[in-house]
Amino acid sequence: ADSQRHRHTVRRGRPGPDGPQHRPASHAAGHRRRPAAAARQDDQVPGRRRACAPGRPRTDHGVHARRGRVLRRRRLHRHPLRGRHRPGQTPARPRAAPSRRGPGRAAGQRRAGRGGGKASADAGDPIPALIEIDCDGHRGGVQPDGPDLLEIGRRLVEAGAELRGVLDHAGESYFARTTEAQRQAAQQERDAVVLAANRLREEGLPTPVVSVGSTPTAHAAADLSGITEVRAGNYVFFDLVMAGIGVCDIDDLALSVVVTVIGHRLDKGWILTDGGWMATSRDRGTAVQQVDQGYGLVTDLAGRVISDLVMTGASQEHGVLSLRPGSARHLPDLAIGSRVRILPNHACATAAQHREYHVVDGQSSLAVQAVWPRHNGW
Amino acid sequence: ADSQRHRHTVRRGRPGPDGPQHRPASHAAGHRRRPAAAARQDDQVPGRRRACAPGRPRTDHGVHARRGRVLRRRRLHRHPLRGRHRPGQTPARPRAAPSRRGPGRAAGQRRAGRGGGKASADAGDPIPALIEIDCDGHRGGVQPDGPDLLEIGRRLVEAGAELRGVLDHAGESYFARTTEAQRQAAQQERDAVVLAANRLREEGLPTPVVSVGSTPTAHAAADLSGITEVRAGNYVFFDLVMAGIGVCDIDDLALSVVVTVIGHRLDKGWILTDGGWMATSRDRGTAVQQVDQGYGLVTDLAGRVISDLVMTGASQEHGVLSLRPGSARHLPDLAIGSRVRILPNHACATAAQHREYHVVDGQSSLAVQAVWPRHNGW
Repeated sequence: ADSQRHRHTVRRGRPGPDGPQHRPASHAAGHRRRPAAAARQDDQVPGRRRACAPGRPRTDHGVHARRGRVLRRRRLHRHPLRGRHRPGQTPARPRAAPSRRGPGRAAGQRRAGRGGGKASADAGDPIPALIEIDCDGHRGGVQPDGPDLLEIGRRLVEAGAELRGVLDHAGESYFARTTEAQRQAAQQERDAVVLAANRLREEGLPTPVVSVGSTPTAHAAADLSGITEVRAGNYVFFDLVMAGIGVCDIDDLALSVVVTVIGHRLDKGWILTDGGWMATSRDRGTAVQQVDQGYGLVTDLAGRVISDLVMTGASQEHGVLSLRPGSARHLPDLAIGSRVRILPNHACATAAQHREYHVVDGQSSLAVQAVWPRHNGW
Repeated sequence: ADSQRHRHTVRRGRPGPDGPQHRPASHAAGHRRRPAAAARQDDQVPGRRRACAPGRPRTDHGVHARRGRVLRRRRLHRHPLRGRHRPGQTPARPRAAPSRRGPGRAAGQRRAGRGGGKASADAGDPIPALIEIDCDGHRGGVQPDGPDLLEIGRRLVEAGAELRGVLDHAGESYFARTTEAQRQAAQQERDAVVLAANRLREEGLPTPVVSVGSTPTAHAAADLSGITEVRAGNYVFFDLVMAGIGVCDIDDLALSVVVTVIGHRLDKGWILTDGGWMATSRDRGTAVQQVDQGYGLVTDLAGRVISDLVMTGASQEHGVLSLRPGSARHLPDLAIGSRVRILPNHACATAAQHREYHVVDGQSSLAVQAVWPRHNGW
């Protein structure tokens, strides 16, 4: 029973990732991951620019400066990070008309186009819309070279919606385990959406926004010509999944969960904490990677990794820390009441379990310097 | 990319479960579950009695009447559901001194006992405390027949804390797949905590609370003599994991998530929704059961199961509905914009992803009759 209550804090000090997600056909226990919503994270982080709402107030925190440095180090400074959505408007995306060739396609497509147009007409105001492009078969979207794209674009414009452009997301890049494979995924992501944009423009359809977005491709991209926006929101935090595919180092992870040791089961090799999956989320994104990090790596309060100590188990409000299988080390002596940090598999999922960020410098001081509210929901 | 936002509602109309949790040694992809915190749910559900805060206001909703009926049907009416904690006080539990015989045990035990006593002395007020008993080796707690129990009890009382009693949680009952195995787990859970309580009392230590709690054992228990409290909070909702081990039927599930169809990928057999794992949680508790329900079963808005349609995939804000593998049915024609409900694997985890409950009758009307706020955090 987990009836006691503890408040956990989410720490943020350094820039950092996108998270992974389970794959569709997850009826097998060993399910693979699907990519997280990159742009999502924008709205979770106070003080960050928001891809779709540039008119909102922006606060300046120290983390920005550091983020700028890291972006430069990662050669991302040339990314055109901002779209050109109008302040105060959130572009609506007509969702994926079915892309297969065959019965049902035309009907679905007409519904999608007509829906956007009708809503615009009903509102008496053009609703801005992006068309989702499928660049790798990972999720939704229309084919960049298919007829659906042009038909949806035409219907939107004819019916009075405001066609703002196209976007895609290289979901498969989360399974690219080498820099070269990630670079190829980035090129494919860029090529698909630029092809789609050019086809729309050739038809005389306005397409100012050409948007890509996944953290692995944002870091691996060599060619972003024609791109106006990168929605790689997860990179403000990074996480173990990103470290696992080489996008960052463990030391780059900016988000952790502070937990308190509440018991020992030395007969089982367990250190019990007050942070279970309600604190870390259920995300086990590293389970399918080369190194399975359990529910997360353990660090001291200063962020130094405690070698071979992993959060190997989680019940609702209890965590189990134990040594990595095969480790020759001894279980560290963490007294009841001592506090450690858990580095999460998936920063998006972990952050969503919390109401606020407790911001620490992470370099010179462990004191909480600010508390930032989180927008929960989606 | 998952940048669009949608609000999902959690529905509650009928009584219903405990959820499962990953097991510690989850370094294998096919990890097993660990039991959820039963008592937790008490604090999540407005209008329910709260095990540890009986002084809080209680509202009366129709669901209570129905719950009473269901409890009677399940022969739970004889459960003494309430503890006797003092209003306004949350009992502190000194967490598990290590239970193994050997070095470290005595030190940990002294720390636990001394901690409770010292805190009481510092506060100038006796802090109420429950001692956690380990009934099945599943998580923390001390052995009911070991010396730690009495030493912790003595130290608490001597140092000025208020010993309120003992509690345990039959975590292993989530893996009991027959009614008989669940009954045995319930007996073991009851026997352990009653043994502990009697030993404390024989030492002259006050032990008014004797508490058990897990949903499978709450439903299977044949002997609750000596028990003063059952903390089986999940049973207000039930979920697919509980149905999977025979504790309830699918029709008993009280909680669902409403999602909207946003696209089709007929070439892949997918219906895309706006509800991903941010709506349902990552919990895949049925993955280790006889029938894997993916991320959940799909029903229409009235709660009628759509045969063989399962939420098989989830990204952060997208869900994938497809036919159960091997099904001979055709994918149903769910138009873009239509809404369906997802029955979750684990009601605790799913509810925690939401800010409020949208209450519907579920029998005579689909209209939302009330909105109940949720307490998030833990």
